[in-house]
Amino acid sequence: MGISMGPVGRPWRFDLALAGDRAVPMRIRIGRAIVREIQRGRLAPGSMLPGSRTLCAQLKVNRKVVVAAIADLASQGWLEPLPARGTRVAVDLPSFPVADVESPRRSAGAVLERGRSWLAVSDGIPDSRIAPIDELARAGRRALLALRRSALGYGDPAGDPALREILAGFVNQARGLSSTADEVVITRGSQGALSLFALAMLRPGDAVAVESPGYSPAWRAFESLAGARVVHVPVDAHGLCTDALEAQAERLRGRLKAVYVTPHHQYPTTVAMSPERRMHLGRLAERRDFFIIEDDYDYEYHFEGSPLLPLSAAPDLSRRCIYVASLSKLIAPAVRLGYVIADPSVVARLRQARDTLDRQGDVILERSLAELFEDGVVQRHARRARRIYGERRRHLIEELRSSPALRDRFDCTPSSGGLALWVRLRRGAVESLVDDARAAGVILTPGSSHLPSGRLAAFRFGFAAHTLEELTRLCRVLEATGRQDGQPAGRRSSRSPPSRRS
Amino acid sequence: MGISMGPVGRPWRFDLALAGDRAVPMRIRIGRAIVREIQRGRLAPGSMLPGSRTLCAQLKVNRKVVVAAIADLASQGWLEPLPARGTRVAVDLPSFPVADVESPRRSAGAVLERGRSWLAVSDGIPDSRIAPIDELARAGRRALLALRRSALGYGDPAGDPALREILAGFVNQARGLSSTADEVVITRGSQGALSLFALAMLRPGDAVAVESPGYSPAWRAFESLAGARVVHVPVDAHGLCTDALEAQAERLRGRLKAVYVTPHHQYPTTVAMSPERRMHLGRLAERRDFFIIEDDYDYEYHFEGSPLLPLSAAPDLSRRCIYVASLSKLIAPAVRLGYVIADPSVVARLRQARDTLDRQGDVILERSLAELFEDGVVQRHARRARRIYGERRRHLIEELRSSPALRDRFDCTPSSGGLALWVRLRRGAVESLVDDARAAGVILTPGSSHLPSGRLAAFRFGFAAHTLEELTRLCRVLEATGRQDGQPAGRRSSRSPPSRRS
Repeated sequence: MGISMGPVGRPWRFDLALAGDRAVPMRIRIGRAIVREIQRGRLAPGSMLPGSRTLCAQLKVNRKVVVAAIADLASQGWLEPLPARGTRVAVDLPSFPVADVESPRRSAGAVLERGRSWLAVSDGIPDSRIAPIDELARAGRRALLALRRSALGYGDPAGDPALREILAGFVNQARGLSSTADEVVITRGSQGALSLFALAMLRPGDAVAVESPGYSPAWRAFESLAGARVVHVPVDAHGLCTDALEAQAERLRGRLKAVYVTPHHQYPTTVAMSPERRMHLGRLAERRDFFIIEDDYDYEYHFEGSPLLPLSAAPDLSRRCIYVASLSKLIAPAVRLGYVIADPSVVARLRQARDTLDRQGDVILERSLAELFEDGVVQRHARRARRIYGERRRHLIEELRSSPALRDRFDCTPSSGGLALWVRLRRGAVESLVDDARAAGVILTPGSSHLPSGRLAAFRFGFAAHTLEELTRLCRVLEATGRQDGQPAGRRSSRSPPSRRS
Repeated sequence: MGISMGPVGRPWRFDLALAGDRAVPMRIRIGRAIVREIQRGRLAPGSMLPGSRTLCAQLKVNRKVVVAAIADLASQGWLEPLPARGTRVAVDLPSFPVADVESPRRSAGAVLERGRSWLAVSDGIPDSRIAPIDELARAGRRALLALRRSALGYGDPAGDPALREILAGFVNQARGLSSTADEVVITRGSQGALSLFALAMLRPGDAVAVESPGYSPAWRAFESLAGARVVHVPVDAHGLCTDALEAQAERLRGRLKAVYVTPHHQYPTTVAMSPERRMHLGRLAERRDFFIIEDDYDYEYHFEGSPLLPLSAAPDLSRRCIYVASLSKLIAPAVRLGYVIADPSVVARLRQARDTLDRQGDVILERSLAELFEDGVVQRHARRARRIYGERRRHLIEELRSSPALRDRFDCTPSSGGLALWVRLRRGAVESLVDDARAAGVILTPGSSHLPSGRLAAFRFGFAAHTLEELTRLCRVLEATGRQDGQPAGRRSSRSPPSRRS
């Protein structure tokens, strides 16, 4: 069933689902089809919808049904009625759950079926809405055309050479490393970097020490891809407790192959590892001969003072450091490009594993990013993002501090950077908070999910992906949940969706 | 050092390499910089280069050097001098080696340094030059814009739900499977599918039977990612020798977990597995309880008669078949999208492994492809590609048969489809042929590289990625190497680059 829409600029068709599932009321089906077209970008924000008479004639349905579907979408914020002019697609579209693994299609379904829009407290992802998408699209187009001309298609398993050179220069200049293109491997996000290390460098029975609370997807990569044993080491206000690590290293002897750390803004607590701990970790690595996997997932985002340089910038450590970083945080989660910087002997093994695993990365995306770096687009975006996120961070801190109800319940000592605050509950269980927030339409990941077992009365409050208005709204919801204190919510199942970092 | 070029439409800068490596003569450095801009698509084919006076003023070099650099590139086919008008970028750019892992930058270097253009006999890849690149670029742009609007970025580890539904419908309709979207996992090319199976379904010590000669990247995935033992089973004119497989299965008992086959066009020999062998394989899989990994990497390309349906289309086998296919072959190698269709219990494990490995695929690319399928672009391209490749195939067969010199040396019984011919040498070693061809500027992969050890006097002659003129040129080179017969080339090292399939 095809309908063409003049003002949109190009004809578009409703999804076949409109004609398909006859059990769903026509009003809902029409609504879903329109939302889908908006999400796919075929109906642009601000463009006019054809009149309801035109629509119902083309869809061969009663006009009342079309009018009702449009009213549904208007109440959900997808469409805006303009008096005497018709209906247009909203300029600011509704927010979606961002922390969950839901597809846009399923999200749209949820929005429509439940008749309300959900908001998820982000884990600390960047805001795709401010990303340099136009520039990326243009660079992608040029990369594709160049690809056709050169008849190429297969690339280097370590990634596009130009991008590797650029990334080496980028971290050298901004983070004090002294790397060359030959020491860089481009990966599928930072998770791809960790799994590549697991596959190339670990064997069953090897031990890897990790931070606890920490980044559980890393644990899974070491355990389930390499059969390694993950050893949990506590974190305090100064980062990884290196005394505890020393005791573990002593106990494990030669089996400890690597330590996985997030020293810049510890995940999830955001604390920076102190210089003393860093030196202690370096000495231990030398003495016990293990690798330091330094996951520097959001180095760009420091808001107060200048940050400590990465461990990998220390000349005497660089040989045993596996530096992991990501462009997903710098641009958008959908730009799934991470990279590893490591000693050439490690790079050789990573490259081989990569070739076996899936041969190479996304040539088109890698070349596009190289171009965006060369043209300064990434650098400009980073400056702009830092400014916007800094403002959002200040706003969230101000909201949390200015409300007596929130100040009374939550404790939050902001670290100097990162894209999230670590908020501790002064009383009560985070699981009740999660349940109450969910009942109010807000999805929240409890801190316990960052532990191998046990509970942690805290949560990550990502601020970067939310506008100031959204942050205020989230804080009002948290305030409202507080009013129910003393009447704990029922023990609904509240083990949260997995955290989504980069 | 920046120079802006009016007619090109947007300013462009020379790569920093121009100012960098001072050991390389300026003439070469200028040439490289121009080639790089062409390859990146910033200097479009057919666009005018600024005059040499303008160039030398901006680069601050002697005009003679610029003129010499332009002359170099003109002789290599990059630029075309137009009498009295200046110099323009060639409309038909030189061919590159396509079978090798070389990056475009290194290829350009090779072209420039050796002063000649290499041509690689393709392994059987499609021709990126005919791919629907414009449509893909437009769809990519829309996917990116939609992504920004929806604030999403993380997706389903099994892949975009819309694309999974489309792929299920596509293989059901064209290949007789009866799959649903829930049985589809989108992967990083077919290699990504094989490595996902290895990680999710195999354990150290498990045995996997493979075809020999066969597709060695699959062997590496089973061996090095899962620690599985690869057991080689011979292939003859009817495909995998199932009697030999039966003997191995008997010997291995319960340890044989899977058999990896390419029944449609066996890799590398292109033979189709006979119906009797297929039935035998199916019975063995039931009796011995192993999976059949059916790699159907180029089902689209059959040129004579209608092909046998995949093993996975047999209702009694579908539960134990892991159907692997790829869009790389359908569109372009750079479109690294493969997919697996398997029983939901297998899919659940693949999805989990995927989440651990790198979380998800390329959301933007997956959505773009969904749109291209919905708009019929992929289907139209497949029909066009089949026509073009069929013509190239006929041309190559005609060339090989009509030349007495080639007919005398090479034996080739074309199978009914695929993107390559399997050419056997009637006499002599393929290694000598490889050396002689290389001396004549042609890169060729010896059949021996498809065996675990030993020699195979044959090679794959991919025809799809070459124009009729290129195929003719390749055949002339092969003819010329034949004239040296009786004077065998020196035993230069000729173990070839790894095969690049999809």
